[in-house]
Order: sequence, then structure tokens, then C-alpha cells
Amino acid sequence: MTVEIAQDSAGHAMQPEDTPELRALYKAFQDNHLNPLWTQTGDLMPEHPKPKAVAHVWKWRELLPLAKKSGELVPVGRGGERRAIGLANPGLGGAAYVSPTLWAAIQYLCPRETAPEHRHSQNAFRFVVEGEGVWTVVNGDPVRMSRGDLLLTPGWNFHGHHNDTDQPMAWIDGLDIPFSQQNDVGFFEFGSDQVTDYATPNVSRGERLWCHPGLRPLSGLQDTVASPIGAYRWEYTDRALTEQLLLEDEGQPATVEQGHAAIRYVNPTTGGDVMPTIRCEFHRLRSGTKTPNRREVGSTVFQVFEGEGAVELAGQAHKLEIGDMFVIPSWVPWSLEAETQFDLFRFSDAPIMERLHFMRTMIDGQAK
Amino acid sequence: MTVEIAQDSAGHAMQPEDTPELRALYKAFQDNHLNPLWTQTGDLMPEHPKPKAVAHVWKWRELLPLAKKSGELVPVGRGGERRAIGLANPGLGGAAYVSPTLWAAIQYLCPRETAPEHRHSQNAFRFVVEGEGVWTVVNGDPVRMSRGDLLLTPGWNFHGHHNDTDQPMAWIDGLDIPFSQQNDVGFFEFGSDQVTDYATPNVSRGERLWCHPGLRPLSGLQDTVASPIGAYRWEYTDRALTEQLLLEDEGQPATVEQGHAAIRYVNPTTGGDVMPTIRCEFHRLRSGTKTPNRREVGSTVFQVFEGEGAVELAGQAHKLEIGDMFVIPSWVPWSLEAETQFDLFRFSDAPIMERLHFMRTMIDGQAK
Amino acid sequence: MTVEIAQDSAGHAMQPEDTPELRALYKAFQDNHLNPLWTQTGDLMPEHPKPKAVAHVWKWRELLPLAKKSGELVPVGRGGERRAIGLANPGLGGAAYVSPTLWAAIQYLCPRETAPEHRHSQNAFRFVVEGEGVWTVVNGDPVRMSRGDLLLTPGWNFHGHHNDTDQPMAWIDGLDIPFSQQNDVGFFEFGSDQVTDYATPNVSRGERLWCHPGLRPLSGLQDTVASPIGAYRWEYTDRALTEQLLLEDEGQPATVEQGHAAIRYVNPTTGGDVMPTIRCEFHRLRSGTKTPNRREVGSTVFQVFEGEGAVELAGQAHKLEIGDMFVIPSWVPWSLEAETQFDLFRFSDAPIMERLHFMRTMIDGQAK
Amino acid sequence: MTVEIAQDSAGHAMQPEDTPELRALYKAFQDNHLNPLWTQTGDLMPEHPKPKAVAHVWKWRELLPLAKKSGELVPVGRGGERRAIGLANPGLGGAAYVSPTLWAAIQYLCPRETAPEHRHSQNAFRFVVEGEGVWTVVNGDPVRMSRGDLLLTPGWNFHGHHNDTDQPMAWIDGLDIPFSQQNDVGFFEFGSDQVTDYATPNVSRGERLWCHPGLRPLSGLQDTVASPIGAYRWEYTDRALTEQLLLEDEGQPATVEQGHAAIRYVNPTTGGDVMPTIRCEFHRLRSGTKTPNRREVGSTVFQVFEGEGAVELAGQAHKLEIGDMFVIPSWVPWSLEAETQFDLFRFSDAPIMERLHFMRTMIDGQAK
Repeated sequence: MTVEIAQDSAGHAMQPEDTPELRALYKAFQDNHLNPLWTQTGDLMPEHPKPKAVAHVWKWRELLPLAKKSGELVPVGRGGERRAIGLANPGLGGAAYVSPTLWAAIQYLCPRETAPEHRHSQNAFRFVVEGEGVWTVVNGDPVRMSRGDLLLTPGWNFHGHHNDTDQPMAWIDGLDIPFSQQNDVGFFEFGSDQVTDYATPNVSRGERLWCHPGLRPLSGLQDTVASPIGAYRWEYTDRALTEQLLLEDEGQPATVEQGHAAIRYVNPTTGGDVMPTIRCEFHRLRSGTKTPNRREVGSTVFQVFEGEGAVELAGQAHKLEIGDMFVIPSWVPWSLEAETQFDLFRFSDAPIMERLHFMRTMIDGQAK
Repeated sequence: MTVEIAQDSAGHAMQPEDTPELRALYKAFQDNHLNPLWTQTGDLMPEHPKPKAVAHVWKWRELLPLAKKSGELVPVGRGGERRAIGLANPGLGGAAYVSPTLWAAIQYLCPRETAPEHRHSQNAFRFVVEGEGVWTVVNGDPVRMSRGDLLLTPGWNFHGHHNDTDQPMAWIDGLDIPFSQQNDVGFFEFGSDQVTDYATPNVSRGERLWCHPGLRPLSGLQDTVASPIGAYRWEYTDRALTEQLLLEDEGQPATVEQGHAAIRYVNPTTGGDVMPTIRCEFHRLRSGTKTPNRREVGSTVFQVFEGEGAVELAGQAHKLEIGDMFVIPSWVPWSLEAETQFDLFRFSDAPIMERLHFMRTMIDGQAK
Repeated sequence: MTVEIAQDSAGHAMQPEDTPELRALYKAFQDNHLNPLWTQTGDLMPEHPKPKAVAHVWKWRELLPLAKKSGELVPVGRGGERRAIGLANPGLGGAAYVSPTLWAAIQYLCPRETAPEHRHSQNAFRFVVEGEGVWTVVNGDPVRMSRGDLLLTPGWNFHGHHNDTDQPMAWIDGLDIPFSQQNDVGFFEFGSDQVTDYATPNVSRGERLWCHPGLRPLSGLQDTVASPIGAYRWEYTDRALTEQLLLEDEGQPATVEQGHAAIRYVNPTTGGDVMPTIRCEFHRLRSGTKTPNRREVGSTVFQVFEGEGAVELAGQAHKLEIGDMFVIPSWVPWSLEAETQFDLFRFSDAPIMERLHFMRTMIDGQAK
Repeated sequence: MTVEIAQDSAGHAMQPEDTPELRALYKAFQDNHLNPLWTQTGDLMPEHPKPKAVAHVWKWRELLPLAKKSGELVPVGRGGERRAIGLANPGLGGAAYVSPTLWAAIQYLCPRETAPEHRHSQNAFRFVVEGEGVWTVVNGDPVRMSRGDLLLTPGWNFHGHHNDTDQPMAWIDGLDIPFSQQNDVGFFEFGSDQVTDYATPNVSRGERLWCHPGLRPLSGLQDTVASPIGAYRWEYTDRALTEQLLLEDEGQPATVEQGHAAIRYVNPTTGGDVMPTIRCEFHRLRSGTKTPNRREVGSTVFQVFEGEGAVELAGQAHKLEIGDMFVIPSWVPWSLEAETQFDLFRFSDAPIMERLHFMRTMIDGQAK
């Protein structure tokens, strides 16, 4: 244990004199599995969040070739479970954590391959930035994956994937693995080594039951912890965003900010977030729009879906193209700027922050 | 005050002897605005709900001609406000109450007519069993009314109607007027003598913002007491019911009961009922389906939308055709039987009963 | 059906001409159990609540002797169930309704008498303005009744009363009988002809389990629709009010308004109202305090517990002494004035109004 | 990055062959801040929680002397803020974390000392196992600390401590520092270098307003995120537990299990946990009682308050005396055994687990 010297706001040290007696005390602490607060107050309780995780951008043009190469070299099957390559935040020591709470990965499935079924406490989703041809089978319900779709596999639902085509397919996975790992909440169970249903319907059973706006089946009146919708289709997302911008053109309140349309994916049984730990959203900026400077508690990940633009992360601008992903750790200031119409998928740990009442937001320096 | 003699379950009277002294006491009660419980216990607190309202069927083929005749004789405008003819439950002494809580009416608008704008605490909806060509303008948002659509005007929203065509149009109105009247909760305010917007868009602004399955605008994250959706379109209702029956065909759980598909219209911000006092549902029975015998606390109204069948109300069967309406008072047993595919719109005061914890349901004699 | 002529706000009639054809139409309405809106719009949908119920004061010095006389003349037992004399609002045609939703009665039990056990959907409470010696047995748990105590018997709990002394005892009963009766929600079941337990403990089992501030038994983690506390003791109520006034003396925020301390009785499992339809509160005014003018949706009843003062009801002042009761119908303006320290028990139907989102409050002419 | 070989349930490796090409791929992953799932699936997603934290017991007779020694050698004041010595879980690498989510410390204040005011997002409580004489000033409200009391300082409330006596005092602190640190949610602000009020009232203002069973001030009708009660007094806790055991003696349902009384400290505005991340409870076992074997998701800490007994942690028994503390990491099986009447204070991160829907409980091998 290093004896660090904390200071007050004016820089005055309030630490004990370094004597043999003190060293003996500190040794006794160590021997008894104790650790004093006064040597580390500022570290444990900083003035504002000072994440170890850093803001970082991963380029799709680098991710995709590595995923393809993995497709050539690495089998997919029981044990490894998934050919998923996790984004490892440079500030987090190499662990496959994009942030302290979130996992983000590119997953790759070769032609005709199957990733076997399993289930786990961890909540998961997939988002498809390009391609098609894979079905995710969730508790026996085959769900088509296509460009722009958000697919859910909430905690403790069996799921596997299979590629029904002669083309490989890549997509991104988002999970709460780091949160789960850190807080020891995860259970895991193997399922079928294949998927339980190789049918390839265009629309899943969950969608057929639940994707009718404002309507709820009488057979489904019990609220559920996570959304019963397996796939949020691009067709609906795109239409919702298009309408928001048209309404804005007509002078109607509809967008978040001028030139900035956005939807949140929700659990239709409650109107709340799709899963207890993960928020999913889609944002569309008109060409030329720059969003205000924002700081939020909790971490968030974006993937560019369409168009070109840039993100300013802690004062540094990064150009962005289709498929690029970036992470914004807690309280790091950020804003987006669109060079063309600019479409971005977003996910975050905001439900954790809100449910535990840690959320704070600052927009252009003002608490919101 | 009549001195009635209550009895216990075995028929034993527990009433005082009728003496001059007792009569003097009862006279003193009356003079002091008092009324004893013991003379009326069974009336005030029956073993189970014994509504004054009775089950009753109104035939569309009788309603519609009277509405048309009203169109000829009665102007629509400020003061009378609406050419609406209320269903008066035969048990409720002629008042325009279909049940103690609910109002149901046929409303009629002649070609090119306008029903002026107003707002009130009472929650209201319209359901269209036939016709088209009228727009309801809700807080300035014009909402098209077409066959099979459910239109909402929740409490304290300005609304008016105008007929944009050369054909008259009739539809049904549902409100909580009796509840509001009985419990003294209503406020009312006149608005424009015209409607504020005579545009006739196919889709209202509320729908454009909110009718995307599983998606919520970021500009609308605050939960609302009533649904922000102005129109629930037949296209979606029909598709949801069709899918439920197809899923049933495939052996999947989707329907309420074998052969009985049903949806509840919900507030997308909460997943709950569309308005605080009124529940709206749509039911579809396969030809030949007979639903179990059901008793529920609270009152409900049905309108046949399509097909033929019958309802058994307190043991008596009534044949039903398109447009026919019937009311089921609290705890009256009922079941439906379909001769063809049989589509029915339903509304009820169930949110009142559930929020105040008075709801009970019995199916085939079993508490549910 | 009388043809009444409604008018718009400027007094212009918008009614059809009175022709034979119109009379025939109105006759047809009647024959078909229909009733037009346009002849009664203003009645059904007034600008603000215009209750039939009126504000009224009942004097304890008149109530109590009549209750005593009933004790002499009227037996208590199965069938009549309770020797309870209901306050009949002069505006409600003689029915034993203090308001459209609430029942208020004085109940009287002679020495050694038992009022037999029963249960009903209706929610009930007792409040004791004077006396002691009766126990209410709620689901087998004997609950002592003493001056200043609030006793609950929420819907569907068996309950009976017995007087363990040689003195008679009177108290007030509050229930939602009119609401229940009007809306057909009530069930009733006879229990034991005696009470199931004649023990006379000082403290009930419910209190022993639940009346520890801020503590919840691990055996009672499930939230309940109504409070599990059978008796809210005067000792605690008095202490809470005393502390509020002392804190006010110390310049701390604690009272509702200057000189006006108040508590709400709550369900400890939720922090909400004690029962789904009835709110109970206790108010204490310092001598000389006059509360602002208040209008609220819904009806409320007060009973003076201690001290002297007055209530102004719709502009008319009424002097008040111990035991006096008064009702304030919906939207009737009122204020209290204290000549001495002035203690009042209050109950109302506010949970109904709030849960159904009809509540509005105006204080000194300002919407609150 | 080490290449670890995961296996399926039957022990079959599903890993790629170790070739130069694979090594090049893995090198490219590292260079691009990527990390594959398939080499670590079992670690990231274990079959059940496999915490790094271990079950561990700290003996009060070792803690207290070290705290006293710190009192001699270490000043308390701005910068170090508190003379608090954190329990460092032996499995967590020396960090002052008793578990991944929780901080537990012994704090020590010398005669007449003041620990200065500050506030932070982290939620905190104190529990007093022995001694008295210190007041915690929470947002200006001085709160007496005495044996058996639970004191709250929820997130973002200013608080300081001062010792009003000539005796030192020790107590335990519990916070969500590790959770806050790990997830980057913490804000911190210095307050007064002294406490803002050196008064030493027996009862705090918060208690005077809120500690009346079943009563809520009308000035406090808004629900709060954390409890408004600053101190939960031993007198009430003891009485609640005593009553539960007496009720059990009378054959009434009151205890959790035979011989096991327990209360949860709650927020009176909601009936829920005292703070959004920390649950506090107090348990009392009759002499001779042994609780069933229990496993729960999330971590928990106990401190013995009175009596003697033992805890079995993952199959290993540990004798316990007054003041001893122990931590149970997620899913570690445990049971308590009482040699005398045995009183224990408990706190845990259960609100996190429940709000995020990760909670699972197993009792004697059965999912509960």
C-alpha cells in the first residue's frame, strides 16, 4: 500500500506525519485486510466522475476485415459460443469492456454456420449496420436480421444464430457483460447445439403479436421486465424519424432539438426501456446540424448507420463514416456534427443510472 | 321515509318494534337529515352487485334512422354542441346513461356541417362502424375518421368535428359523463365556434409522432395521463387480430381463448388504458366460437362491427347484426356466440374498477 | 321527457323549432330508450362542478341524543347489522349519503352489546370523538377504540364490534357506500353472529407488527391495497401535530400553512392513502388561524375533535363545537377559522379523484 | 493477452488451432483495442456468479484497537475528510472495497473533534454498535448517534460529525463507494470546515416530522428518492423485534422463519428501501435458531450487535461476538446460528439487484 497524500481544495495536506508508528499502523491495516480512507479520499470520491475508460473511436474499415479473418481462422461452436470480437476500451487495461458497464462487439457468422443456443442473465441486443441472411432464434422464435434492425435477446432467453445464406454476415452485439461480471450477477446455461428452429420467416412471432402501434394482445396483459418485441425493424425506425423532420418542417414540435430527430426503442408493456440495464436509441441529424455540448452520467456507445459527420469527444473532433463506433465514458463532453444527413444508432447504460438515481445531465454547461 | 324491514340470510327480521316512540325517533331523524342503516342494510350493501341498470340491446337499424331524422330537424351548433343521441338504460329512469358510469351515443353530422370546438374534463372517444368523411380536430390536430377507427379526445382537450363531404356520417361516442355527473368532477369550456383547422390529412400529427410500433419520440419522454394517439386505425387492429388467429392456427399462444382474438387499445407512454376511466378493446371470434360465461364488476358496452352472432345476457339470447349495441351492467353474466366471423368493439369502465381495487371476475362460475 | 332549451354562453338558444315532427322524433327517442344530448348539454356538462349535494353542518349535541334514543329502541344484530345513523345530505333526496361518494354515520353500542361480524367490498373506518370501551375485531384481531383513534376496516375484511363495559359508546363510521351503491361494486358476506375474539388487548396485533416508525417486518414485504394498521392512535397523531407547531416556532418548514399543522394517515407499505377510495387526515389550527379559501374536486367531511371555531362554506359562516360534523361537496369554497386551538378529523374521496385524474384544487382563486 | 482455451460442458475445446496466422490476428486485435469473446467465454459468463470477492470475517476486537491507534496518529480534517478505515476484501487486491459494490468502514472520532461537512453522490449510513456522544449534522439538522441507531446521509446531502464529549466514539460507515467508483457516477463538494450547527438535541428535526407510525406530514407529500428519516432509533427496532417474537409465541404469523425476527428499515414516503442502492435490515435470532442455507445475488455485510453465535460461510463456520463484521459475496451460501439471543445489523446492495432485475434467491437448494 502506497501512502498517498490527499489534499483539500486549496491544496492543504491534511495527512499524518510519516513516523515509524504510523508505518506500523499502516502495516497492521494491511495485515488485517483494512485500508484507510484518508490516503485516497480524492480518488474514491472525486469532484465529478473521472473515468478510467477513455473516449475512443473504432473504424468499421478496420473492424470488418479482422472479423472476416476470424471467420477464416476461428470456428464457432460450443465452448467459445460466439465469433464475437469485443471493443476493449484503451483505458480499461485490455479487458473486453467498451466501458465499465457495457460490452460492444462485432460478431461474424460464415455462410451456413450456426452459433449454438444458450441463455444468460446478461441482457443482449444485436444491431445490423449492413447485410442480411442470419436468423436469431429466441426461445424458439426465429427472428430475421436485416440492415437497420435492432434485435433483442433479454436476460435468460435462449438464443442462437444461424446463417441461411452463402454470404457471411457481420453485426454488432451489445451486452451488460462488464456490469454483470463486476457485480457478480450472471448465470449461464447451455441450450441446443443447433438452433431449435431453422425456419426463416420474414416476421417473427413476437412481432406478429406485439408490433401493432398502440395495441396490446389480451393474451399479454402482464407487464414484462424486458420488451416482448424480438425485432425493431428499420422500416419503422426510418419512418418515425422521417415524420419527425417533416413535422419540424411544418413548424410542429417533434424533434429533440432543431435538426435532430430521435427515437427511443421501448418495451410496449410499460413504455420504458427495452431492457433493465440497456437503453437503445436511434438519432438522425439533418446535414449541417451540430448538437449542443452534452455531459451525462453513465457510458454510451454510438455506431454510424448512414451518412458522414463527426463527433467531438472531450474537445477533440473525429471524422466518422458508416459502421464507425465510438464510446463516451461518464461525464465526458461530446457533440455531434452532420456533414450529410447523419444516422446513428446509440446504446447506453442510462437505465442503470436512472433506476439508481445517479443520472445527471449538463447541456452547454447548464444542468438540465 | 318508508320503514323497510331488512332480514338476515335466514329470513329473520332484526328490526325494532313499530311503536309511537320509534316513529317519533324516525321523524326526528328526518328532521335532522339523518337516515338509519338498519332499515336498508340489504339495499345499501347487497350480497353482490344488484344494478338498477339492466342489460339491453339497441338495434342499429333503429338507431340510424332516428339519427338521420335528427339530422333533418335538429341544427348542430353552440349550446347544444353535438347532435348526439344517448342510449338511455331502461333501468335508469330515462336519463341518458347507458350505465351508471358510461355514456354511449350515436352522433350524426350532415354534409359540410361543423360541430363547434369545446373541451371538458370528461374523457371521450369515437368509434366508426360505417362511413367516412368527418375529421375531428383535437387541440388543432385534424384526425380523419373512417370505418373501424377508434378516435380519442381525452379530458380537457379541445375538439370539434366537421364533415368535409356531401354525405352525412354517423358514429358512436363514448364518455364517462354519468360518472362525472354523479361525482361532480366536470369542467367545461367553449372553444372556437368553428374548428381551428379544416385541413383533411390522411394521418394526424399525433399518429405521425406516435404510431410506430415499439418506438417513442425523444421529444415525448414524459408519461401522459391519456394516450397521445388520436386515432387507432382499423388497418392495424385488423392485422393484429388476423395475426393472433394465424398464430393460434400454428399452435402458438396468442388468443385469449380458443377462437377468440382480442386487443386492448393502450397509451404507448405506459402500456396502460387509453384514458383514466375508459377501457377500449376489439374482439374477434371465429365462426362457431362461444365464449365462456363471464361476470365482471363494472359496466361494459359492445358494438357489433362485422358479422353475425348472438349475446347471452343474464341467460337470455339476443341476435346481433352490424351496428347493434348492448350494455352489460355490473355482475350480469354474459357470453358471446359467433355465427360467422364476428367482430365487436368494446368499451368499459374497467380502469375505474381496477384503480380503486373493486374489480372481480368470474368465468364459468370460477373466480379468476 | 321534458324538452329543455340549452343556451350557449352568450344566452343564444341553439335548439330546434318545436314542431309536430320534432315531438314525434322525441317520442321515438323515448320509445327506443334514447335521450338527446342537445336538450341537456349544460346539465350534463356544466362549466364547473355543480353538485346536488349541499354544504351542511350536523351538530353533535343533536346527533348524540338521537343515537342514545336509538340505543333504547333499536336492537343491534343480524339483518340490521349496525346501529348506525347515516348523515343524509339535504340535497340528495333523503338518501343516507353525506355526499355522492361518502357515507358518514354515528354508530352507537350499548353496554355489553355485540354488533355481529360481516365483510363487504366497501371500505370503512371509525373515528372516536369521545368515549372508550369498544373493541372492533378485524379478521380476528381485537382493536381497542379510544378517543382520538382512527380505526380501519378496509374492504373485504371481516369485522364486528363489542362493548366490553357498562357504558354505551358512540363513534363515527365513514364508508364509500354511496360510490359502491351507485357504481354496483359491492359484495357482502355474513360472518360470525358474535365476534370471534372477545379479548380486550390494549394494542392490536396489526399495530404490534406495523406501528414502528420507518420499520417494516420482513414477514410483510408484499405491498397491500389498504393499510395493514388497524388503529392509528391519538397519542401519535397528537405528538406529530405538536411537533409540527414546535418546528414552526423554531422557524423550520413543517406545517402546511402558517398556524396550520396536518397529517395524513397512510398505508406504510406504500406511503399512500390508507384505503383505495378514502383519504383520512387530521388538522390542527393555532388559535386565531384562518385558512385560505379553498375549492377542491370531490367531497370531504370534517368532524371537530377539540376546540372551537368556525367554517365558512360557500360564503356562509357556521360556528363549530366538539363533535360537529360538516360536509363540503365538490368545488364548494371553504375555509376554517380557529377561536381556540382547533382540532379536526377529516376524510374525503380524494383517492378516487386523484387515481382517475379528476382532481383540481384552487386556493384563494389560484389553481394550485 | 494470453490465449486461454475455453471448453464446452463436456470438456471439448472449441478453440482455433494455434498458427502463426492466428497469432497475427490476435496481435491485430490487440493493436486495434479489440479482445475476442471465444478465449474467455467461461470467465465473462460463468454458470453462476463466481465472485473474486471472498467471504471474510473481521473481528471487532482487532478493528477497534486499530481505530483507536489511528485516533492517536491521524488527524481528521479537510482533505482526508474522515478517520475511516475501510474493510478491504481479501479477494479484491487490497482496494478498500468490502465487496464490488459496498464500502464498510470503522470510523473513529476523538473527544471534541469535528469531521468537516461535505456532500457526495454516494449514499451513506452509520450504524452504532457501541458508544454515544457524536452528532451527525445532515443538511443542518443535528442527529444524535447512540448505540443501536441507524443514521442516514443519502446522496448529495451535506453532512459532518462532531464529538460533543470527552470520550472517543467509533461506529461503522456503509456506502456504495465501490459501485460509484466502478461506474463513474460520483460527484463531491466540500461544505463548511466545521459543522453548521453544534446543538445536541436528543431528537432531530427529521425524526420529529417523520417518526410517527403511519402518519405523513401534509408538508411532505412529495415522495423522495431516499428516506427523510435521519435516525432510526434502537428503541423502535428493539420493540419491533420483541413484538415479532411475542406474536410468534402467541401462534401468530410475524417472523420470517421460526425463531427469526427481522425488520427492514424503509423510506416512509414509499415503503421501499431507505436509499436507492443500499438495503438496511436488523435480524434477531432466538437462542438455538439456525437459519436455512441461503444464496442470493449481490453482496451483503453483517455486524453482530448483541449476543453470540456463528455464521457458516461457504460451508465453513465462524464464531461471532459483538461488533464482528462479515461479508457474503454474491451467491456464496450462508446460514446463521444463535448460541444466545443473537442480534445482527445487515446491509446489502439488494436494491441494485432488484431494480435491475438480477436478483435470485435460493433457500436450502430451492429457488425462491
